[in-house]
Amino acid sequence: MSWRADRGCVFLLTDYGSVDEFAGIVRAAVSRSAPDAPVVDLTHHIPPYDVRAGALALARCVPHLGPGVVVAVVDPGVGAARRAVAVATGAATGPGVLIGPDNGLLAWALDLLGGPTEAVSLRPTQPPSTFDGRDVFAPAAARLWRGESLADLGTSIDPMDLVRLRDIGLTVSAGRVEAEVLWIDHFGNIQLAAGEADAVSACFGPIVHVVGGGRVVPARRVGSFAQLEADEVGLVVDANGHLAVVCDRRSAASALGIAAGDVLELRAISEPV
Amino acid sequence: MSWRADRGCVFLLTDYGSVDEFAGIVRAAVSRSAPDAPVVDLTHHIPPYDVRAGALALARCVPHLGPGVVVAVVDPGVGAARRAVAVATGAATGPGVLIGPDNGLLAWALDLLGGPTEAVSLRPTQPPSTFDGRDVFAPAAARLWRGESLADLGTSIDPMDLVRLRDIGLTVSAGRVEAEVLWIDHFGNIQLAAGEADAVSACFGPIVHVVGGGRVVPARRVGSFAQLEADEVGLVVDANGHLAVVCDRRSAASALGIAAGDVLELRAISEPV
Amino acid sequence: MSWRADRGCVFLLTDYGSVDEFAGIVRAAVSRSAPDAPVVDLTHHIPPYDVRAGALALARCVPHLGPGVVVAVVDPGVGAARRAVAVATGAATGPGVLIGPDNGLLAWALDLLGGPTEAVSLRPTQPPSTFDGRDVFAPAAARLWRGESLADLGTSIDPMDLVRLRDIGLTVSAGRVEAEVLWIDHFGNIQLAAGEADAVSACFGPIVHVVGGGRVVPARRVGSFAQLEADEVGLVVDANGHLAVVCDRRSAASALGIAAGDVLELRAISEPV
Repeated sequence: MSWRADRGCVFLLTDYGSVDEFAGIVRAAVSRSAPDAPVVDLTHHIPPYDVRAGALALARCVPHLGPGVVVAVVDPGVGAARRAVAVATGAATGPGVLIGPDNGLLAWALDLLGGPTEAVSLRPTQPPSTFDGRDVFAPAAARLWRGESLADLGTSIDPMDLVRLRDIGLTVSAGRVEAEVLWIDHFGNIQLAAGEADAVSACFGPIVHVVGGGRVVPARRVGSFAQLEADEVGLVVDANGHLAVVCDRRSAASALGIAAGDVLELRAISEPV
Repeated sequence: MSWRADRGCVFLLTDYGSVDEFAGIVRAAVSRSAPDAPVVDLTHHIPPYDVRAGALALARCVPHLGPGVVVAVVDPGVGAARRAVAVATGAATGPGVLIGPDNGLLAWALDLLGGPTEAVSLRPTQPPSTFDGRDVFAPAAARLWRGESLADLGTSIDPMDLVRLRDIGLTVSAGRVEAEVLWIDHFGNIQLAAGEADAVSACFGPIVHVVGGGRVVPARRVGSFAQLEADEVGLVVDANGHLAVVCDRRSAASALGIAAGDVLELRAISEPV
Repeated sequence: MSWRADRGCVFLLTDYGSVDEFAGIVRAAVSRSAPDAPVVDLTHHIPPYDVRAGALALARCVPHLGPGVVVAVVDPGVGAARRAVAVATGAATGPGVLIGPDNGLLAWALDLLGGPTEAVSLRPTQPPSTFDGRDVFAPAAARLWRGESLADLGTSIDPMDLVRLRDIGLTVSAGRVEAEVLWIDHFGNIQLAAGEADAVSACFGPIVHVVGGGRVVPARRVGSFAQLEADEVGLVVDANGHLAVVCDRRSAASALGIAAGDVLELRAISEPV
């Protein structure tokens, strides 16, 4: 099967940061082989080596991308035994191929794109590089963008064998949602591994208790940040469809002492507070 | 009236930061609908929620931009009652339309572009989004870039009704300029709400006193940073035509203890110091 | 002589940071005059005024770039006596012209591109600008990209007269390499002014002693980060062909207390440790 013909963009997501020239060099490597490819930097600020944070960010991104090729690099195992892979997806829209290390980084994004339909193990450089973003992943993306097939880039592998990360933590019962904190964004919003449907299952009313960081705090369910009072905590459905604990114009994460990877509990309140 | 036909670029200015994928997703949203549009990131580092800082940055930018569409997002009221707007300008050069929240962010830039000539209130998503950059502003910019008219995007509103921010603070008299600090840049230069003409009106000589941060410091008027001695403070006309208090290869803001929003006084010195 | 006809990209490397709009304005200035030029941001995070760090970063970049024009700006002398230059290179591949201040920033990159073959002093603006990136360098890059010749942009100068920085510090003898620390990257890897050939000349075995930061630490020579134990220090040949002192998933620079500009000594160990 060939990936979607509409070339679209080359999307980049890495932990390279923006202080060094790493991201720029990857971009230059794409442009060198595919000068007409529009390159979109999704982010280069995944915390260094944090494959889980990268996988979550990629999963947030892919539903909002048009056609193209994604290069994702959070790769503590670069140059070692882990495989470098390119994986085609079954989605009717969105990026047709995801490229990166086979360490779980791509798995959730692939799930959201209909699952993998075909995968290859990319040929390593000789000797192995410590900068596969430049030497392996970007050249592969450029070749795909220019119309080469997955089979041209490496050895076919079973897409069911791709590495997966530990499942996301979520428990829902009547009156209670216990959820992993997936992400603290730039504004301090606390994104949870739960969605609106989980709030419905838990029979939440207009106010819930947020239990975490050694505190129990009431949070009002609102549609936007601006509906909150200055000292109030809110629960919104965020732009990715997740429940998020938020404040208005200040960081909920700082206010509650919460970090990514923590577990937060939401509890129904039977009586109005 | 249709906006300038030369499509130019889509320019982005936000407070999204670069750690998260927000800016990348906006860019991807533009590219999805208008794959050939060159997208230029002006900055994504306006301090969170600081509409005034965003409005000042946008005003610094627009005189230096070619044709195109600007998307500006510093939007604490997202999802609430504030309008989302697209505004056409009367300028012969520069961007033809500015898009963003109607909270004062666009007003000074519009003034510099000859004032608004036509405006529409963009249709909100249903339900309202907490990420209008992705869901409302970027799609509108892509549609304009592709040739649709303002009227296709929403309901016509009176451009004279757009929200304006409190005026910039500036008082000039003989021997004295009292000016709001508009901006501390990356190098620590202190940009004032005053220009060369104000220095002329105040009859400043080659040295003035800078009063602020609890200090009075002499500043020599120079044409470039490198004309200053290592421990000297200078007053230049900066690259935006503003008076700026500067040092050579160090931060004037740190040296003087000054922040954006402070008020600085410049005083003429009759006798040489 | 005309520079390479294949237009390629416009590459940007500056100390402008990404908080302010400086880099975006330079990009907009290129796009205004050359809307079809792909612009690649290499980095805008050279430490402010640090010409040496900028020259090293540029030298790391240029071997990996395709055709095009490089604009490099780390320019404490902007607006003063230093020349602004555009320099053509003799390389068969890579960027054909480098543009920037004549303060040593371009010299090592030019060496790597076969040396300068032709140079011009760019005409300054009147009055001199404090933002030559926007007012002088970007317009020159756009004009070159559109096909104008170097001679159209300024006055011919002798390319042998370009300013050079102090040489990089490196001493190699039997059993010993003393090398300047060129760069601490985002991951804390310590890049040295020495390569694999120097390690061969010094007759290093599989383990060497690293002397620096008041410590002597054994470092094992490995091919990738992941081959190291959690508490181990390693010596790799990095992605630029330099010897680098590294750790696995943590900062070697923090572990050893080393900064860019320091001198590290590597010593052979005759007996296994």
